[in-house]
Amino acid sequence: MRDVSIIGLGQVPVREHWDRSLRQLGADAARAALRDARVDRVDALIAGNMLCGELAGQRHIGALIADHAGLGGIEAYAVEAACGSGGVAMRTGVLAVASGALDLVVVVGVEKMTDRSPHDITAALASASDADYEADVGLSFVALNALLMRRYMHEYGVRHEHFAPFVVNAHNNAVDNPDAMFRFAVTEKEFLSAKMIADPVNLLDSSPVCDGAAAVVLCPSELSRQYCQRPVRVLATAVATDTLALHDRADLLRLDAAASSAHKAFAQARLGPRDVHVFEAHDAFTIMAVLSLEACGFAERGQGIRLGLDGEITPGGKLPIATFGGLKARGHPVGATGVYQIVEVAHQLRGTAGKNQLRGSPSIGMAQSFGGSAATVATTLLEAPR
Amino acid sequence: MRDVSIIGLGQVPVREHWDRSLRQLGADAARAALRDARVDRVDALIAGNMLCGELAGQRHIGALIADHAGLGGIEAYAVEAACGSGGVAMRTGVLAVASGALDLVVVVGVEKMTDRSPHDITAALASASDADYEADVGLSFVALNALLMRRYMHEYGVRHEHFAPFVVNAHNNAVDNPDAMFRFAVTEKEFLSAKMIADPVNLLDSSPVCDGAAAVVLCPSELSRQYCQRPVRVLATAVATDTLALHDRADLLRLDAAASSAHKAFAQARLGPRDVHVFEAHDAFTIMAVLSLEACGFAERGQGIRLGLDGEITPGGKLPIATFGGLKARGHPVGATGVYQIVEVAHQLRGTAGKNQLRGSPSIGMAQSFGGSAATVATTLLEAPR
Repeated sequence: MRDVSIIGLGQVPVREHWDRSLRQLGADAARAALRDARVDRVDALIAGNMLCGELAGQRHIGALIADHAGLGGIEAYAVEAACGSGGVAMRTGVLAVASGALDLVVVVGVEKMTDRSPHDITAALASASDADYEADVGLSFVALNALLMRRYMHEYGVRHEHFAPFVVNAHNNAVDNPDAMFRFAVTEKEFLSAKMIADPVNLLDSSPVCDGAAAVVLCPSELSRQYCQRPVRVLATAVATDTLALHDRADLLRLDAAASSAHKAFAQARLGPRDVHVFEAHDAFTIMAVLSLEACGFAERGQGIRLGLDGEITPGGKLPIATFGGLKARGHPVGATGVYQIVEVAHQLRGTAGKNQLRGSPSIGMAQSFGGSAATVATTLLEAPR
Repeated sequence: MRDVSIIGLGQVPVREHWDRSLRQLGADAARAALRDARVDRVDALIAGNMLCGELAGQRHIGALIADHAGLGGIEAYAVEAACGSGGVAMRTGVLAVASGALDLVVVVGVEKMTDRSPHDITAALASASDADYEADVGLSFVALNALLMRRYMHEYGVRHEHFAPFVVNAHNNAVDNPDAMFRFAVTEKEFLSAKMIADPVNLLDSSPVCDGAAAVVLCPSELSRQYCQRPVRVLATAVATDTLALHDRADLLRLDAAASSAHKAFAQARLGPRDVHVFEAHDAFTIMAVLSLEACGFAERGQGIRLGLDGEITPGGKLPIATFGGLKARGHPVGATGVYQIVEVAHQLRGTAGKNQLRGSPSIGMAQSFGGSAATVATTLLEAPR
């Protein structure tokens, strides 16, 4: 199995891109990553996407984006695991290079959500849950997360205000990220007075509907210095799954797929939670960030909330998260998000994070991407250039 | 790069399965392949599917099918390249095993189309074409294939009746296949008097809307004899792409992605068209079978039609195609089709094709799966057990 590195990073700003189509967003991110890697051509393009068919009437975007990125003819296809599509696309790209079959692969996460009505978007997103037993009875993703958050608060005696540090941190970090959707700070008071959506989830617990695309170029580590001064090594990629439906799980607050995926990734890299200097969590809803921290072993069960209260998740803390704003404030273009996370961790590790750069030269970074209610979880571990 | 073999084959009959859901179809095929391989558990499940979201309101079927197949927790996701999804899923499964990261992988092609109206199905299928420049102006896939067929007839002085042998052969071969949708023979006369759909494509030039699922279990060749007496070796998998829109191509009748994909596969296996004993072509429409034969080098340009007229595509001919009925008569559950083709070629090679078994012990088989108007093409080359 060949060792794999990231040699190029690209992204488009997360916005409501009414002037850019799905294919343009994907092609723009892919070209940006190719420019960063200083390559004109790659062997394959793998797209992470969830809702191109439902929201744009377009499937088959692997070939389409390859063509519009000037890469016509190459191997290309799309990978889907709901909101975890980007993280899973990374996994398939890494395995393709690791196998020896392909040398240069660009992984592009892309989603175009804002052309449709809120009703259409909510219904499309619900297809990440169990359509027959959750979506069809009216459970949207906000509602599913409300059930989880309520249970967490009940089980551990936590109040809604205790979640505030996660939102405040994400928005603070987005201010200096030109690619973030919401470049404004949010106070605890603003968080607590935000409009209720599905009690206890309020507007500021929730990530936005938006458009975006991000990309990484992968190659064998042994070739990476040919292309790039500071390649970021992929230490591990791992995917695990769980039941789609929450009611099929023995323990609502134990995200088994997140734990299993993190465990597999740590085992591959021979590392543990204490070795990680920066973590991009799947904070589509505040509760998910907390449960992800616990599942990965960064906190004991019921203690993830404390990492926020103790300031440990901020840029100066022990385990900075959402360093560019996270899903909450950078934005969550669902199938693209997993690749945005990886691009951001890689920027932190190679020292190109601009005003968002963490101090102290982080050497190990981790990203975790969720599909649905963490029914598919992809974990990526990256290492700084040496 | 590890050598990979197929150790298990499974499929459900292609039908209008009003009594079986998407998840059941996928799980049934996966379990059948696992039983055939005599394994209870695999490391990963990769689903090939196109339209689960559009037609069943359900995305995220990798985790869902893994769970319903009793494989809860394993790595799982879906791969999409329109009607070529199954063939491309095979490619990703083979690379995952080849990489050394995973030992046992089940690749499941699955599609559930018949729960919706013909209008919904036609619109969903059109998302395989260029949505902005083809589908949105009203070009359905029947219409796109009519343009190609008309052009072929004009360019090479071919008449519609010359396509009859492809339809007659496919239906003849489906009669003895219990998993085929249309188990009845069709005469040339019946073909010529079939209802016109989009001139010159008539009803019997067209594959049906249907439901189905097929699966293969992959493992490293070096381990394959542990599981299976007669493993089928994967000699090559290759994917190539072209423009989605026909009007963006320099030459309508040259399927560049099919040619490139076949060329790459032959190069990997160090074989050529003359080495292939059985070929499963993507005969979603009669014209596509003809163009596939030409693109792969089985016939010169304009001469693919002759392979039919000369009887070479029948079970007794030089290059049998559609040996279980093909897309035309076995049926074309779009995202599942590429895996059905591979299952059928593998049955021929290991000598388990039942009444459809070709004589003379074929040793090399090939399957080619198209997405859209051959804008994504996956080619698989397999070798009989030795």
